[in-house]
Amino acid sequence: MKLETKTASFDTSLYLESGRILERFDLTYETYGELNADKSNVIVVCHALTGSHHAAGTYEGDTKAGWWDGLIGDGKTIDTQKYFVICSNVIGSCFGSTGPMSDSNKGLPYRYKFPVLTISDMVNAQMELFSSLGINEVEAVIGGSMGGMQAIAFAVDHPKFAKRTIVLASTYATSPWAIAFNKVSSESILKDPDFKNGYYEKGSFTDKGLSGMAVGRMAGHISFLSHDSMQEKFGRDYVAQDGLYELFGKFQVERYLEYNSYNFTRSFDPLSYLYIIKAINIFDMSRGFDTLSDTLKVVTSQMTIIGFKSDLLFQAEESKKIHDSMVEAGNGKHSRYIEIDSSYGHDAFLVELDLFKHHIKEALDEQPN
Amino acid sequence: MKLETKTASFDTSLYLESGRILERFDLTYETYGELNADKSNVIVVCHALTGSHHAAGTYEGDTKAGWWDGLIGDGKTIDTQKYFVICSNVIGSCFGSTGPMSDSNKGLPYRYKFPVLTISDMVNAQMELFSSLGINEVEAVIGGSMGGMQAIAFAVDHPKFAKRTIVLASTYATSPWAIAFNKVSSESILKDPDFKNGYYEKGSFTDKGLSGMAVGRMAGHISFLSHDSMQEKFGRDYVAQDGLYELFGKFQVERYLEYNSYNFTRSFDPLSYLYIIKAINIFDMSRGFDTLSDTLKVVTSQMTIIGFKSDLLFQAEESKKIHDSMVEAGNGKHSRYIEIDSSYGHDAFLVELDLFKHHIKEALDEQPN
Repeated sequence: MKLETKTASFDTSLYLESGRILERFDLTYETYGELNADKSNVIVVCHALTGSHHAAGTYEGDTKAGWWDGLIGDGKTIDTQKYFVICSNVIGSCFGSTGPMSDSNKGLPYRYKFPVLTISDMVNAQMELFSSLGINEVEAVIGGSMGGMQAIAFAVDHPKFAKRTIVLASTYATSPWAIAFNKVSSESILKDPDFKNGYYEKGSFTDKGLSGMAVGRMAGHISFLSHDSMQEKFGRDYVAQDGLYELFGKFQVERYLEYNSYNFTRSFDPLSYLYIIKAINIFDMSRGFDTLSDTLKVVTSQMTIIGFKSDLLFQAEESKKIHDSMVEAGNGKHSRYIEIDSSYGHDAFLVELDLFKHHIKEALDEQPN
Repeated sequence: MKLETKTASFDTSLYLESGRILERFDLTYETYGELNADKSNVIVVCHALTGSHHAAGTYEGDTKAGWWDGLIGDGKTIDTQKYFVICSNVIGSCFGSTGPMSDSNKGLPYRYKFPVLTISDMVNAQMELFSSLGINEVEAVIGGSMGGMQAIAFAVDHPKFAKRTIVLASTYATSPWAIAFNKVSSESILKDPDFKNGYYEKGSFTDKGLSGMAVGRMAGHISFLSHDSMQEKFGRDYVAQDGLYELFGKFQVERYLEYNSYNFTRSFDPLSYLYIIKAINIFDMSRGFDTLSDTLKVVTSQMTIIGFKSDLLFQAEESKKIHDSMVEAGNGKHSRYIEIDSSYGHDAFLVELDLFKHHIKEALDEQPN
């Protein structure tokens, strides 16, 4: 599989939903496979909150593959011998695309001067990228969680762009339940003195991480899993060398949360985290419309909406409501809802590929109505 | 209703499950109604993690009633014209009973020298209290959440003590899911510099609270509610004066979490919090037995186990397993399981009294088998 990582710079103004303008911006993106002559074999993959453009393949000298490597590659479900797959790091993030710690035109990091972004803004920035590559229509846009929000925004804001839209473990409007989990993160980051009210030095957390963000991430991990998946994964196992009656003795589930959360804070920028959860919190596809079905009337892309039974963060019923609203909008022939019977929770869209990859293949092979 | 608040001091050693000894301890407790001549009208009520002995009635000059005031009082479900109700602040807590910030025999607060407690230890301390009051048998022990854990521990560790045991929204062994929520709290407290690694001054947080504990409490509140109850209570309502595109603009659910969590940290001691969640985490009634049903063979109290459908913290199926194990233990005639159809989440046992109080009345009126 041919893998390329690039950064594109845009000097065009990006007009944001808030009314503000981002005067220039970079997007770091990755491509897999080869673009055919008439540029008709493109699939766009959108990443989740803390994901990146590195969706597939393994970098030289690295051991960890991209976050959807099980799905994207030569001969895989999203077959890179057939398709040219693009995954872009969203604006606001911290893996090369313009975000709050990027230099503003004054030469200093934006920090809080960075504008609040929406999911539609992230999508509009990507549209500039695709347009610069001469790509005006794609075979499919696919994404899970926040990636699914982007996929819906593509379908609503740019109805002619994607022939097919595949949305996994996502929602049409972020619920107070998900906002509450994000609140634990934002509060925890903001109150950590090492965060220095947003005026930390770049790279401060590469070594020891930021405990405030780690705490928030622990809450995040809870929302990504489920009661049953934790039971299965950890049970009540105790860390062997710890005494049960030691105040700081640990259960395995605690060790898992610590390990993953602190690791995460070494690579992810806390201001980016604040800006991206803000974008998720204010995501509401029906804003400005009377109902969700009114919003979805413009959709002509063939929608495949996949919900996961044990997903506590973006519940299956929220996915189902997207499909139901498509039907209500008179767009039923363009929509299909699939519910996956998984006990893994929200993370199922990243982990339990075998449960749903045939549905993705089917959606890609099918001719849109 | 006659309400009395007292503190009893015990110079007897309390032998703890860990093998350690608490040489002396205080218990602050509250009573409602009057003890009859033969001391045969007693009901014990057990409080949850952050509750206190103040279960019912309203103090002079105060406006806020006890946490189960809807249930306990003259003519109420737990009728204080008939019963003498006792609720004791558990050891480890911070409302008058001996806890980590109490003075040790060296005249300084125990802090980390305080022993790790278990739910059974909390119950054993209360047994000392009841014994000192000449009460050797009670009509019922009732509790929800951690109060339910205590109720089970009374029934197993002191089988002759309670004629009836009523357990609400609780479990037989804390799940990794609940432990994970507690982990957010403990990590967040420990990493807050104002916590000073446990060497903070007494009363440091009365004014502005402890943000690390507030963050943990926010995660707690999530676990006490449910997706649906949050949707109903807050929807996606935004705080009116905040702009949608302000980074620090707030949803109503965020304001609720902030308000309640910071309020909480002004009155609750963080070391007590760490010790009590530790007791909850290591709670496992079947420790030392092969199975839960083996544990429950000794139970002669009439058990009423009440689970709540939307309870995410201690799920209904965990309650049901207690009943099923009673049946398996050949103790089926002493057990009844009731599932309450509520969408409120774990907090239903504190809030939706109308949904279950008739079951409590029935259990109290019924003659035990």
